[in-house]
Amino acid sequence: MADVMGRLAELAGVSDGPGLTRLFLSPSHRRAADLVAGWMQAAGLAARIDAIGNVVGWNGVKGPRLMLGSHIDTVRDAGWFDGNYGVLAAIEAVERAGELPFGVEVIAFGDEEGVRFPATLSGSRAAAGVFDHAALVGRDADGVSMGEALLAFGGDPNLVAAEARDPAQVLGYVELHIEQGPVLEAEGLAAGVVTAINGASRYAVSVAGQAGHAGTVPMAMRHDALTAAAEMVLAVEAVACERVDVVATVGALSVKPGAPNAIPGAVEFSIDLRAPVDADRLEAASAIRAGLDRIAVSRRVDYELMQTHDAPATSCAPWLQARLMAAVEARTGRAFSLPSGAGHDAMAMAALCPVGMVFLRCRGGVSHTPEEFLAAADAEIGVAILVDFLRGFSRA
Amino acid sequence: MADVMGRLAELAGVSDGPGLTRLFLSPSHRRAADLVAGWMQAAGLAARIDAIGNVVGWNGVKGPRLMLGSHIDTVRDAGWFDGNYGVLAAIEAVERAGELPFGVEVIAFGDEEGVRFPATLSGSRAAAGVFDHAALVGRDADGVSMGEALLAFGGDPNLVAAEARDPAQVLGYVELHIEQGPVLEAEGLAAGVVTAINGASRYAVSVAGQAGHAGTVPMAMRHDALTAAAEMVLAVEAVACERVDVVATVGALSVKPGAPNAIPGAVEFSIDLRAPVDADRLEAASAIRAGLDRIAVSRRVDYELMQTHDAPATSCAPWLQARLMAAVEARTGRAFSLPSGAGHDAMAMAALCPVGMVFLRCRGGVSHTPEEFLAAADAEIGVAILVDFLRGFSRA
Repeated sequence: MADVMGRLAELAGVSDGPGLTRLFLSPSHRRAADLVAGWMQAAGLAARIDAIGNVVGWNGVKGPRLMLGSHIDTVRDAGWFDGNYGVLAAIEAVERAGELPFGVEVIAFGDEEGVRFPATLSGSRAAAGVFDHAALVGRDADGVSMGEALLAFGGDPNLVAAEARDPAQVLGYVELHIEQGPVLEAEGLAAGVVTAINGASRYAVSVAGQAGHAGTVPMAMRHDALTAAAEMVLAVEAVACERVDVVATVGALSVKPGAPNAIPGAVEFSIDLRAPVDADRLEAASAIRAGLDRIAVSRRVDYELMQTHDAPATSCAPWLQARLMAAVEARTGRAFSLPSGAGHDAMAMAALCPVGMVFLRCRGGVSHTPEEFLAAADAEIGVAILVDFLRGFSRA
Repeated sequence: MADVMGRLAELAGVSDGPGLTRLFLSPSHRRAADLVAGWMQAAGLAARIDAIGNVVGWNGVKGPRLMLGSHIDTVRDAGWFDGNYGVLAAIEAVERAGELPFGVEVIAFGDEEGVRFPATLSGSRAAAGVFDHAALVGRDADGVSMGEALLAFGGDPNLVAAEARDPAQVLGYVELHIEQGPVLEAEGLAAGVVTAINGASRYAVSVAGQAGHAGTVPMAMRHDALTAAAEMVLAVEAVACERVDVVATVGALSVKPGAPNAIPGAVEFSIDLRAPVDADRLEAASAIRAGLDRIAVSRRVDYELMQTHDAPATSCAPWLQARLMAAVEARTGRAFSLPSGAGHDAMAMAALCPVGMVFLRCRGGVSHTPEEFLAAADAEIGVAILVDFLRGFSRA
């Protein structure tokens, strides 16, 4: 049996530059792919690197396959665990599970983070047959296109379409991932089953009031864009707080003219709204609009709201949730489920097959920083959950 | 009789660069001083440019003098009227008033705006005997010290102290100025008497919450620095709205990390608080602190508040207010008074003598931009008020 934490540490050393930065199709991504392919082979899997740069290991059993995996690309200055843990846990679990009566494939996707090119989930989209070939001409900050980078990596833009799996030959896709949030830690649980990956809406809001001298305009004569925006920020929060599993965030806000002695004339802010059920998200969005309308009238300011992003929720298959839950309950003592607020490769794979996810507790809920931390004991619980799941697995 | 609006237009052409930019001790300030000195002489005043660059015109009557004036330096890309109007109206009023039984001096100060050097009100402070000579070593953006600039202008750093007036020889200081606010326009009045120049406090507030992923942290587990700051912004506003003549403004606010998908971990904002009565300002400041304390506790965030500025209010002398009010009422039909939210040379002159101010209506309350506008009819009313005041003037 391998040491998953030791492999995570070794993989974390495969980086371009100091810290851990391993962008899609970068030199470090190639070295990491080779390293992972070697570990797959050591676990008894037949490994290859596919046309879009995914590392694929197969247990050799013919017929429809259960797919397990996550991603090995990272953000800049990343932690060790995001994505990488799910890949190494899957390799280890398949090895420990021993001979299985069905095909199993472990897959290490690239481009989950979408940091390098104007595209995201390229690896899992290719496997799911929903890769947009227009993404190949998108360029990184150095002007290199994804197609050029793929050739340099050893992939083949012309064969990406051929990587699309036949839905009839895939039983499902299961992914382990750190939670990247604080819920499991607060519950005192090592693991939980994901119910759905939240759908997300983003908006850009512009508030137009009237700038003025902070000393000379009486309070009653002001059209202060910032006090109006402050009410709007609180209204956005209240809409989420009043609803179950809905989260809403104003993360960016800027003020013009932005001087201490000037009444703000204009404010721009963002709204990020997520929910595991699309109808809940759409209802919350309309409650937010109604709140902003009301505030703009009472504050005598104008505002515009523009939607900049809209992604539907991805439900995890109830039967996969049930099988994963049995293993989670056996290993943690509690059947706990939660939605995923962040995006994952499972979103793309849901176009191909039923998907299921298990979240592992991470310290402080932090991710995408070197402080990201998964305890060794929790990493081991995750592997054990996956082993139990594989041994008990039968088709839906 | 001269055409005040015509002179304002001519003076507005005396600028460094396009638009109107006439910084303290700049070449355009020197040209403007010479132009104003010529107009003083044409009005029968003995004119000189003093050691700090003020233009001083005297009616030749010995004994204690009534001083009238304002400033001829401007901000960058300024309007025509801020300061300049008060100087030209005073020259015109003294000429129209004819022979007076007391000494009158018209003074055109420099450096009211404080834009060029790290100092402000240098001209009026010198006349009032409260000039800080350390200001002479302060440098502008090009590295030129005020002392060097003063020599180039034709002034003399060694004689600035000698410009301090003897309080026994000054009857008072009266200044006409555009309101730079919207109150008179809203009241439908051309002019009003200033009760006091507001005292001002400024604070820098830092709110420390906890950053996090906008998708993965449930609402109830957040320590969002921006929603806390939004409550604080509204509390600052409420404190001012609940009090008479108190204004409070959050003009600058910045968010970190400031990304649409990140819960804000830190917010910094400014508070500008002004009131015509210092006790009212201090009471409002302590109400703001109490509000911020309460919000920080309920929002589970930390905050720090640092005072960055503190200037007491300057009261206008009641007897000068009464004399000016008689003239204002006679010319506008209404006895209306209001506080000044902005600073003026009268603040410095108050260290020397009783001060009085009359505000003239300006369009939209806007100032410090080329859109600044004083109607010719209102400019004329201001001159008439000053003529009436001079003719009826007797010592307190």
